[in-house]
Amino acid sequence: MNGTKRIIVIGGSAAGPKAASRARRMDENAEITIYQKSSDLSMASCGYPYYIGGFFDDRNQLLCSPAGVVRDSRFFWNAKKITTKVNTEVTSIDKENKRIEFTDLSTGLKGTADYDKLIIATGATPRKPPVPGLDLEGVTTLQSLPDADYLRKVSDDGDIKKAVVIGGGLIGIETCEALHLAGIEITLIELLPQLLTFLDRQMASLVQKYVQSKANVILENGVTSFLGENGKLTAVKLQNGTEIPCELAVIAIGVVPNTRLAREAGLSVGETGGITVNSYMQTSDADIYAVGDCIEVPNLITGKMVHAPYGDIANLEGRVAGENAVCGNIAQFPGTIQTGICKVFDYGVGATGLSEQNAEKNGFTNIETVINASLDKPGFMQGKLLVTKLIVNRDTNVILGAQVIGPGDVSKQVAIWAMAIKGKLTVTDMVNADLPYAPPYSLAIDHSIATAHIMQNKLNGHFKGISAEELKVKLNNKESLILLDVRNPDEYEQSRIGIGEKLIPLGQLRKRIEELPSDKKNTIIVWCKISLRGYEAALILMANGYKNVYVLEGGMMAWPYEKEK
Amino acid sequence: MNGTKRIIVIGGSAAGPKAASRARRMDENAEITIYQKSSDLSMASCGYPYYIGGFFDDRNQLLCSPAGVVRDSRFFWNAKKITTKVNTEVTSIDKENKRIEFTDLSTGLKGTADYDKLIIATGATPRKPPVPGLDLEGVTTLQSLPDADYLRKVSDDGDIKKAVVIGGGLIGIETCEALHLAGIEITLIELLPQLLTFLDRQMASLVQKYVQSKANVILENGVTSFLGENGKLTAVKLQNGTEIPCELAVIAIGVVPNTRLAREAGLSVGETGGITVNSYMQTSDADIYAVGDCIEVPNLITGKMVHAPYGDIANLEGRVAGENAVCGNIAQFPGTIQTGICKVFDYGVGATGLSEQNAEKNGFTNIETVINASLDKPGFMQGKLLVTKLIVNRDTNVILGAQVIGPGDVSKQVAIWAMAIKGKLTVTDMVNADLPYAPPYSLAIDHSIATAHIMQNKLNGHFKGISAEELKVKLNNKESLILLDVRNPDEYEQSRIGIGEKLIPLGQLRKRIEELPSDKKNTIIVWCKISLRGYEAALILMANGYKNVYVLEGGMMAWPYEKEK
Repeated sequence: MNGTKRIIVIGGSAAGPKAASRARRMDENAEITIYQKSSDLSMASCGYPYYIGGFFDDRNQLLCSPAGVVRDSRFFWNAKKITTKVNTEVTSIDKENKRIEFTDLSTGLKGTADYDKLIIATGATPRKPPVPGLDLEGVTTLQSLPDADYLRKVSDDGDIKKAVVIGGGLIGIETCEALHLAGIEITLIELLPQLLTFLDRQMASLVQKYVQSKANVILENGVTSFLGENGKLTAVKLQNGTEIPCELAVIAIGVVPNTRLAREAGLSVGETGGITVNSYMQTSDADIYAVGDCIEVPNLITGKMVHAPYGDIANLEGRVAGENAVCGNIAQFPGTIQTGICKVFDYGVGATGLSEQNAEKNGFTNIETVINASLDKPGFMQGKLLVTKLIVNRDTNVILGAQVIGPGDVSKQVAIWAMAIKGKLTVTDMVNADLPYAPPYSLAIDHSIATAHIMQNKLNGHFKGISAEELKVKLNNKESLILLDVRNPDEYEQSRIGIGEKLIPLGQLRKRIEELPSDKKNTIIVWCKISLRGYEAALILMANGYKNVYVLEGGMMAWPYEKEK
Repeated sequence: MNGTKRIIVIGGSAAGPKAASRARRMDENAEITIYQKSSDLSMASCGYPYYIGGFFDDRNQLLCSPAGVVRDSRFFWNAKKITTKVNTEVTSIDKENKRIEFTDLSTGLKGTADYDKLIIATGATPRKPPVPGLDLEGVTTLQSLPDADYLRKVSDDGDIKKAVVIGGGLIGIETCEALHLAGIEITLIELLPQLLTFLDRQMASLVQKYVQSKANVILENGVTSFLGENGKLTAVKLQNGTEIPCELAVIAIGVVPNTRLAREAGLSVGETGGITVNSYMQTSDADIYAVGDCIEVPNLITGKMVHAPYGDIANLEGRVAGENAVCGNIAQFPGTIQTGICKVFDYGVGATGLSEQNAEKNGFTNIETVINASLDKPGFMQGKLLVTKLIVNRDTNVILGAQVIGPGDVSKQVAIWAMAIKGKLTVTDMVNADLPYAPPYSLAIDHSIATAHIMQNKLNGHFKGISAEELKVKLNNKESLILLDVRNPDEYEQSRIGIGEKLIPLGQLRKRIEELPSDKKNTIIVWCKISLRGYEAALILMANGYKNVYVLEGGMMAWPYEKEK
C-alpha cells in the first residue's frame, strides 16, 4: 500500500480505543483518529457500579491505564500517537467518498475527514420505557460516566432513602448492590416472571431468594409512569396500579445498538438490531469495520446472530478490526458463547453457552440437565456453596451450557465450562478432567467434575432426577408422592422443607426400608442437603425394587421456595 | 454373573474408599471389603498442612464426610454397606486362587479372604535419604495422620524454635508455610538448583525469591546426617559441611509407590516404579485393578507413563476401577496432564501440561514460550499480580503447558489452561476465548487471553522476547546491550533493576529516539513494569529501523534477581 493509511475510529469507550491501539501497534505510520462524542475516553464502564458502591473512591481509576495514567487525549497522543477528538460527534458517513462529517459539540463547528478505513464503535444506548415522567430529577440510567457521577453523589450525600431499580438484568442487579451499600432501601421491578433471563427459572429463583434478603423484588410488573412534584421524582407507578414512593429510579431494561450512522450510510443491519459484520469485523462496506455493542455476532453454538454487549467481547472485536484495518483481513473473531458473570452482593452469578430454555428455543430437542450443589473447597478450608446447572446434548453428549451461582468461586467454574464448550468437550471428557487440586482451592473432585459425574450417572440411567421446579408442579397438582429426606435428625431439626416428607437417615435406610409403602410403583422423591446422600438412597431404593425413584437435584441447597424451617 | 460379587480393596485412604463406594453405587448386592493397615479411613491427607498450620482446629474435619460425619467403620457399614477392616495389613496376594492373606495388626491373627475382583490402592511411602540419624526424635515426614498429629502438637506446644525442611517440592513448601505460621524459623534444603521442579527455572526463581522472605532457602545441597544428643535431633548436616542447628526436621523429598504386594504377586510394574494398568485401571491380571499413588498412568501429551501422586487423580481412578470391578470394563481413565497447584504462603503456584524443560526432554524441538505479568482483575477492585509462562508447539500452534504464580487468582488461570490442553486448543482458539468478565472477577481481557495475545504476537514475529534468565546470561557474558526502561520517572525512582538501563518513558520515546545510538544493529532490551509498554516501545524502535529489539518478558514483575531498588 502506498502512502500513509488514514484510520478513523468512531467511538472512544472500549472497542474503539482498543481497535485504534491495535492498529497503531501493527502500523507505526498510520494516521489514526478517534472521534468521541463525550468528553472522556476509555472509560471502564463495567466499573461504575463499584465506584458508586464505594469499592474505591478515586474516580480517575475508571479512566486509568494499568500503569495508573489517565487515558486522556495527551496520553493517547504521547503513548500511542493516536489523535483523539473528544466532544465531537460524527454526524454522517459518506461511504462512496470515504469521508465522515462531524460537529465539535463545544464550538458547534462542523468539519469533514477522509479515511482509508473506518471503524464504527458507537456502542449502545439504554432502552427507556415509553412512559411519562422520564425527565424528572431522580430518574436516571447507569450507562455514562455522568450517570455514574450522579449516582456516586447520591451515595455520598446520603439524602435519598428509597430507590426503585427498573430491570432485573445484570446492570439492574449490580445497581441494587451499589445502592444497597449506600444504605438506600431498594425495590427491584422486573417485567418478566424471573430475574436474570440468561438463567433458567429455577436458578433465577435461587438468586431471587437471595436478592430478596437485601431488596424488595417485584416480578411480572412494569412501570406505567414516573410521578413527581416540582420536577422531582416522588414515586414510580406500576402496571398493577401500585405506587412505590421513591426519590430515585434507575432504569436498566437493556440497551439498543447505536446504528443510526450505519443505517443512514446504507450499511446492513441485522434482525437483532446490530450492525452486520463478517468474522473480520467488516460491515457490508469493505472499507468499514464495526465493533462492540453496536454490532451483532454469531452465537457459536447455535450459529444464530445475537446482540452480545459484553465488555470483554468488545475488546476482542476491537483488536481484530484494528489489525485488519491496517494489515488487510488477517485476523478473525469467530463469535461468542455468551459467557457472563455478575456479582450479586456476596454471590457470584454466571453462565456460559445455552440455558435450557434457550437450547429449546434454538431447536435442541434431546437435552439433559442436572443441578449440582456442593462446596467449592473443603469445609475445613471455609468452603462456600456452589450450585451449578449443566445442560448437555443427549444426541452427542456435548456440553451446551452451564449456569453457576452461589457464594463460592463461581468465576472459576464458569471459566471451566466456557473452556469446555470452546473445546467442544463431552460429558465423558469432563468426567476425567485434570484440574488444579489443593485444599485451599478446590475439593479433591472439583465441583465441575462432580457435576459431570452426576450428569454421566443420569445419562447412563443410574438415577432419575427431578428439579425443585418440577417437584413444585407435582405438589401443586397434589400428585401422590412419597417424600423422603435422608439427612441426619439434627440436620432435619435445624432446617427442613416441610412438604410432608418422612425422615429416614441414609445410614438407617437399608434397615428401615419396610417403613415405606410396599407397592414398588409408588413415586418416591428423595433428597438430602445437596443430594449426594439422596443419590445413594435412590440407588438403595431401586435395588430394593422401587421403580419410580427421583432424586431432588441439588437437594435442600437448591430449593428456591419457602421452607418450613 | 451368578451369585454375589466379592470385591476386596487394599487401602483405605483416598482411591480405595472411592473405588469401594463407586462399586457399591453400581451394585447394591456386592460384598465389598476394605483392608486398611492404619486405624483411620478416608483421611483428607492433602489437608494435613492446613491442620498443622492452624487453618482449622477440629482434627475430625480431616475424616469427615461433606455432611460432617466421621468416616469410620460404622459409617462405611451404615451408609454404604462396606465392610472395613482397619489395623489390618494384607501380606500377600494369591492371584491364581484369587485370595489374599492378611494380618490383624492389633491381635497378630492371620487370615485369608477370597475375591472375585481385587483393587489395589496401597499408596506411596515417603522417600528418605540414606543417611544416619533418621530415627532421632524430631526427624519426621508428613505423610500419615500420626505425622500430622505430631507436627500439630509441635505447632501447639510452641517449644521448637528452629526447623529444617528437606525437599523443595510441593509438600516441602506446604510444610514450610505450616511451620512458619507456628512461629518456627525454617531452613529449606533442596538438592536441585531450583524449587518446585514442575516449574521452569525462571518461574521457580520467582517463587524462591518470595519464599526467601519467609524462610532460609539453600539450593544444590543435600543432607549427609541428622545429628542428635540423647536421641533428640540437634542439627542437620549438609553435603557442604554446614551444620544447621534445629530441633525438627521434616523430610519431603518425594514418595515411592508401594508395590511390594503387587510385585510379589507377579503383577507388572513399570519403569517409573508404579504398577502397570490399562485405561480400565486393570493390572496385568484381569481380576486385579490398581489405583492411586501406587500406579503409573500415561501423560496425555507425551504418551509416556508417569507417576502422578495427586489426590484428585486418585479419586478419579478409584471411581473407574470401582465401576469396572462390578460392571465389567465400561469406564476408562485416559491419563493425566499433571495439573497441580499449591499454596505458598500468600502465593498460588500452579502448572498444567508440560514445562519448557519437560517438553524439551520429551522431544518437542520447536516450541515457543512467553511470560506475561498482569493483574487478575482491575486495580480499582484490588487486583493482584499473576505471572504466567505459556508453552506452545510452534509446529501445530497447540498449547503444551502453562505455569502460573502470584498472589492473584492462580487457581482459575491454571484451570483455564488445563481445559485448553484438554480441548487440544491452539493459541488462535485462546486469542478469542469467551470467559466470564466482570470487574470483581477479571480484567476485560482476561490474563489468560492476554497471555495468548502476547504469544500470538510473538509467533507472528511482531516482537522478539527475552526472558530474565536469558538476559542475565547476556549480562554475565558482558554482551554489548542497550538497556531501556520505558516506565514513568516516578516508577523508576521507586524501583528499578539497575543494570545500566536508560530511562525514556514510552510517551517520550518517539521524540527522544535520537538519544539512542544510531547504529540500528545494536541489541536493545526494553521493559516496563509488566512489559506491555515495553512491547509498544519495541514496536516504535523497530518501526524506526532498529533490527535487534527484545522485550524483557514480564518486565520488572518477572525479574527474579536482585534489583538496585
